Parts: sequence; structure tokens; C-alpha cells
Amino acid sequence: MSKPSIGFVGLGAMGFGMATHLVKEGYPVHGFDVFPASVERFKAAGGIPASSLQDSAKEKDFYVCMVASAPQVQSVLFGDDALPQNATLLLCSTVPASYAQSVAAELVSLGRTDISFIDAPVSGGALRAAAGTLSIMAGAPDAALEKGRFLLQEMSDANKLYLVPGGVGAGSNMKMVHQVLAGIHILGASEAQGFAARLGLDAVKTAEAIKSSPAWSWMHENRLQRMLDEDWHPGASALTIILKDVGIITTSARQSQFPTPLCSTAEQVYLSALLQGYGPVDDSSMVRQYFAEPITEVSSTKSEEETAEALQLVLDLMEVTNLVAAAEAISFARYLKVDLKQFYTLVADAAGASRQFMTKGLDIIEGLGQDVNGETVDGATSRLEKAVQKARDLHCPLNLGNAALSVLFMAKKSGLGAEGSASVVKAFEH
Amino acid sequence: MSKPSIGFVGLGAMGFGMATHLVKEGYPVHGFDVFPASVERFKAAGGIPASSLQDSAKEKDFYVCMVASAPQVQSVLFGDDALPQNATLLLCSTVPASYAQSVAAELVSLGRTDISFIDAPVSGGALRAAAGTLSIMAGAPDAALEKGRFLLQEMSDANKLYLVPGGVGAGSNMKMVHQVLAGIHILGASEAQGFAARLGLDAVKTAEAIKSSPAWSWMHENRLQRMLDEDWHPGASALTIILKDVGIITTSARQSQFPTPLCSTAEQVYLSALLQGYGPVDDSSMVRQYFAEPITEVSSTKSEEETAEALQLVLDLMEVTNLVAAAEAISFARYLKVDLKQFYTLVADAAGASRQFMTKGLDIIEGLGQDVNGETVDGATSRLEKAVQKARDLHCPLNLGNAALSVLFMAKKSGLGAEGSASVVKAFEH
Repeated sequence: MSKPSIGFVGLGAMGFGMATHLVKEGYPVHGFDVFPASVERFKAAGGIPASSLQDSAKEKDFYVCMVASAPQVQSVLFGDDALPQNATLLLCSTVPASYAQSVAAELVSLGRTDISFIDAPVSGGALRAAAGTLSIMAGAPDAALEKGRFLLQEMSDANKLYLVPGGVGAGSNMKMVHQVLAGIHILGASEAQGFAARLGLDAVKTAEAIKSSPAWSWMHENRLQRMLDEDWHPGASALTIILKDVGIITTSARQSQFPTPLCSTAEQVYLSALLQGYGPVDDSSMVRQYFAEPITEVSSTKSEEETAEALQLVLDLMEVTNLVAAAEAISFARYLKVDLKQFYTLVADAAGASRQFMTKGLDIIEGLGQDVNGETVDGATSRLEKAVQKARDLHCPLNLGNAALSVLFMAKKSGLGAEGSASVVKAFEH
Repeated sequence: MSKPSIGFVGLGAMGFGMATHLVKEGYPVHGFDVFPASVERFKAAGGIPASSLQDSAKEKDFYVCMVASAPQVQSVLFGDDALPQNATLLLCSTVPASYAQSVAAELVSLGRTDISFIDAPVSGGALRAAAGTLSIMAGAPDAALEKGRFLLQEMSDANKLYLVPGGVGAGSNMKMVHQVLAGIHILGASEAQGFAARLGLDAVKTAEAIKSSPAWSWMHENRLQRMLDEDWHPGASALTIILKDVGIITTSARQSQFPTPLCSTAEQVYLSALLQGYGPVDDSSMVRQYFAEPITEVSSTKSEEETAEALQLVLDLMEVTNLVAAAEAISFARYLKVDLKQFYTLVADAAGASRQFMTKGLDIIEGLGQDVNGETVDGATSRLEKAVQKARDLHCPLNLGNAALSVLFMAKKSGLGAEGSASVVKAFEH
């Protein structure tokens, strides 16, 4: 049986990978992009170039939308009316859940209840897109999921297709709470390495120590090489990309009047960097917000003991900040009624992962307030406090560390000091 | 009766004004500074140049120390031992209260209990220093205050000499909690005017509207002209000056594990600007952190209605941020057992003043949670939220606005939403 034709719009870094992967799997894929060069590139990779948006959608039973933002989605989906009756529509762009729901509502109001609409944002980067091993978080009525499932499976890793309960919007919410972690950890990687440089520590040795410690995050490991090489123009992931996702988070959080102090702090630093011209630059360049020179030029003159002491400050900074980040993400997810067990499973194997989330996430979810290692909120606070004070003495900005410390102080004011460090989540929930 | 000789060390912007004012009042003032040029300038202004620190102190019954920082104070006071028996020593530098107390303790341990030591930080700027109309916050045993009072009176305005109960350290604590407001409002002035520029509003008209509104702050009015003229090199108050005071605040707050989210946020922005080379530049240049061009070059093309709407966002930003700033300063002052009525009186007539502090400060102090205009925490939150969202849509950083909004969201989580807006203080106190 021949494979069905797929319409595809949005051939940027992610979309190009996804569409060409489908080509490799034997699907006739009709791809369109507003940039003719992207369509040409797609043709060269074996895709079928579409001359217009309408051309890409005409007579397709399956259509994938992977443009960059909600306004672009709006003009793609509602500019023409080219999808045939009973088509299945996968919206893979990262958009607010409320926007995905408005698409479903608008289809109804246009009388297009025949369309099976799936809210299916993705995660994993351009390489995994091209390999067909993305994480996909799909929310839709069962009937729609039934129709689109094979296509979701083609684009995702076998273990990373998450059918998210809750219908349209649930997929986008799952992606969003995942990005709370991504948005914080991307800056955290730069903050830790910048602080290490200010402390006079060797960049690579610091990174190795982080990698094997409770301070590890996926983003730190992923961004490290580009940060060291200053491989930034264009690098692999422009600042504007994470800034867009973070904007969805903080905008949604404000609508819910839910505090996301770390993610909001990261956003402010990203916006400052944007003003400095870093928009199209790889996000690992955020290290420049903490250290003015290449961090690899730091050559340590410290004794072994001094090095160990300074390194511990960096590890404490990252570890405790990532703990508060985990609490922020989980509390926001709980507020949005996201399935927390699924969230935990997803994060542990995705770009938002951190060792803190993995070791303490379940305690935070269950509200146990009991740490696996028995540390209290007071203990975590003291460790972070020492790092933050040292940074201040060095005149080093430490945006996330400071924001996390404020949350911990607030938690202590609420009487949580003697509870297990996972209890910091109660500062968000009361 | 001839006036007594005064020894004076530290002839910087403030110290020079203070010392020359004493000269004008007829005192023989022996001035010293580590910069010979400052001593020469003092001589030209009628002062008596001292050839060394020891020379400035020799045989003086009264000695004023106005150097820049605690480490400098330490080397001045304990490097030599030149003060005669029973001298009165005024420490006017801004230092942590714990440091002022350590000076008293060290004098005791050196057997110099004969010295009358007064912890007497000042506020008001170089012009008021030269006019002898500073605000002075003096803490000391009654006997010491009795001896030094005439000198404190010479340097301060008749209504602005505050004899702070609590002994040595109490003056420094009073200054410190005042500077919580100064540190926030200095950045707030730039944040508001930068946001206005991003909104396409005329800078001068915006400033006039702020001045006559509940959003007014003394710092905004004071910094405005230099901000408009970009009179920054060197301007009147270098970034490093407020950064030093803010560092005392956040360091002390961390030692007490007390949250100061707005002041800490301001510090992070100051540290980022320091990294960008703004250290010696006037602090009104912080507007560059929000808007890349001179704000006076913005020419509004908005209709009257659009202008009113955009302006309201700026006013709401400043007003609600200043409200949260007042709550932060008062709660920290209460924690430090500062006399709150005196604090209120002092601030209302000093550089930390804001209309929010003046109209709602007493309600915040008394924990009434009742607003003069009846607005709730929910109401204030909604207004700030709208401003913060608009800034996000414009990609404008809004560091203080975001930090204040996080505090308000936390307050709402604590169930304070329906209480009067002064209740936001409970977010810091529980």
C-alpha cells in the first residue's frame, strides 16, 4: 500500500528535518515555506516543492504545520481554506495552549468539524527532527489521535510519543511546562560557567565536575561545547527561539497570576541580551552576561584546596537553583492540571532534564518534603547563600541564583526551613 | 569662644562639601585625603591641608571620617593611633551596622574607651553636604551624642538630624533601610523612562505626568535632567556609589536570610551594567539597559487616546513597583527593629521618598492592609500585570516590574488578594 501524501508548511531548522525525514520514510511530502530558498533546499533533499501554501495543502489528507509562532499559524490555517474534507491537521508549532484551543474553536465556527485537529508540539532539536526521534506531546480527541498517530510515530522516538490526556491544549501545556525548565537551564549553564570563570576556575574541568554531580542539567551538557568554542554565529539555537518559548510561559503564567520567578528572571536577562544585539546569536553566548572574555582563557592559579572550595560554590549554585526550578515547573504544571507522572517521565528523557528534577521531582510532586539525602530547606538555602555572596563579592551577576535565593527565603518565612528541601515547592503553592 | 579644631578624612564629593561647609562656619578644619589633589582643592577652598592622616588627627578633640567604605575606615581608624584622649569620633561613611559595631568593640579591646564614637551616616548628596543641610542618622550612647551633637547639627538640616535609638549600628541600619528605597528607585526611574520610550512616548511629558502622580519618586525627579541630557561622564553619582550601598543591603539581608527581591533585582542589573563598563558613569545612564537610543529622540506619533493609555501603563508600573518597594523596605526595617515612625518621617523628607511610601507607608507599618483609596492587592496586581505584559510584547526588559509582580503573585497565593494593597507587606513577613 502506498504511503499517503503529506502537506507540510514551515521548513525552518526543525521543520526541514521533520519533513525530510518523512521523505526518507517514503512519503510524498509537499513542502512550502515563505522563504523560496527553504523550498529549494527541500527540493534538493528529495521533497516535492509546493508553489504556494494552497498548493501544499490541496487534496492532502494529512497536513503538518511547523511555522514559528501563533500569528504565523493563524495566517497559515485561516488565510486559505485549502484542506480537503476530513483532513488530519497536526499543529507542531510551539504555541500557547489557549491559542491551540482557539484554533479548534475557530475550525468549529467555520463549520470545519470534519477536520481532525491535533495539538502536537515537539521537542528535541534539529538533529532529532531529521532522525525522526523527536519528543512529541500530542493532545486531541481520541478519534483525531487515532487518525494521526502513525504520522506522530514516524516523527518521534518510540518511547517519546506522549499522548497527553486533556484534548487540544494539553499537548501545548505539557510542552510549556517542560520549557520552564529549558528556559531556566539554558541561562543556568551560562551563569554557572560565567561564575566559574569569575572564580578563576578552568572551564572544562568545571564542566566535567558539573556533569558528574547533582548539579547536572541536559542543557548544560548540550550547550557546553558551543559555549567553549564560542560557536555562536549562528550556532545551533538562536536566543530568539528560547525567548519565544519563555514568552509563552510568562504570558500564560501572568494570565493565571501564577508566580514563575526563575523563568521570569531568565526572560529579563534574555531581553537585556536581545537589546545588546544577541537575538540571532546562539543562546550559549549568554555566558557573556557573566564574563566579558572567552571563559577558556581563564587559567587557574589556585591550589587544589582553593579549587575544590571554589568549585563547590559553582556546584551548589547550579544544584540548588535547579531544585527551585524543578519546584517552579512542577507547581505550575500542577496548577495547569498537567498529568504530573507523565510530565516527570517526559522531562527525565528530554531537554529539560536535570539531576535535581530526576532525583527530587517525585518528592516534589508528592509533596513529601523529604529529601533522598535528607537535606532541609535551611541546608539548601545556606549553600546557595554562600555562592550568591561570593558572586556579589566578585561583582559577578548571578540572576538565577539570586532569584532562587529569594524564593528560598520566602519559603523559610513560611516556616518551611526545617522541612526537606523538596518542600520549597510549597512557596509556590501555599 | 573660638570654635574647636576639627580633623577630617575623606575629601571626596560628599566629604569635600561637608568639610568646606565647616570651614565656612568658622571651624579650623584639618583635612586629609589619600589623593593629594583633593587636599590641594580643600586648601584652595579655605581648609587647612593635613600632610598625613596622623597630622589630620593630631590633638583634635573632634574627628570626622568620611571615606568610601568599611575597609578604608578600618585602615583610617586603626592604622595609626593619633586621636587624643577623650576625642569624639564621627563615622559618617556608609557601612554595615555590624561593621560600625565592630569598630566600637575594637576601640574597647584597644583600651580606647575614652573615645566617644558616633555611628552617623549621612544622606542628601554633594550639594546638601556643602550647604550643611544633610540628613544624618546618628546612633551612639547618649554621652557621645551629647558631645558630638553640635557638630552633627552643623552638617545637617535642622529638621533632618535623626538621633536614632539603639546605639552604635542603629544609625547605619537606618541609613541601610533608607537605601533599600534609593537603590530600587534609581533603577525604577530608568525603567519607567525606558519603558515609556519603548512605548513611543515623549520623555519630558512622561516625566511631568509621573511627577504629579502617585508614581512620583524623589529619585525619578532628581535623576531626570541628567537622564534627558545624558549628562553621564561623570555626572553626579556614579553607578558604583549606589552599587556599594546596595551591596551592604543584600549582604546584610542574606546574613539575616531576609528576602529583598526588588533590591536584589536592582543589584543584578547594576552588576550587569558594571560588566558593560558603566561603573564610573552616572546612574541615570541605567536607562540604556531599557532603551538603546537617547530617550529624547523619541517623537510620539500617537493619538491623544493612545498616549493616555500608554502613559497609564508607565504610571501603573512605577506606582505599583514603588508600593512593593515600600513594603520591602518597611518589612526589612521592622525585622531589624528600626524605629518605624522615625523611619517613616525620615524617608518622607529624603532621597528614598516616593508618593507610595508617603501615602501608604503608615498603613504598611501598622499592618492595616487598608488602602487610602481602597485598592486591593488584586487591583494593584492587575494594573502591574498589564504593564509587564505590554513590555514583554515590546521585548522591553522590565526587571523591577517583573520582580514586583512575582511578589504580588506570591502574596495572592498567600490569600491576600482581596485585602488592601498595603497587605503586600505580609508577603515578606508571614
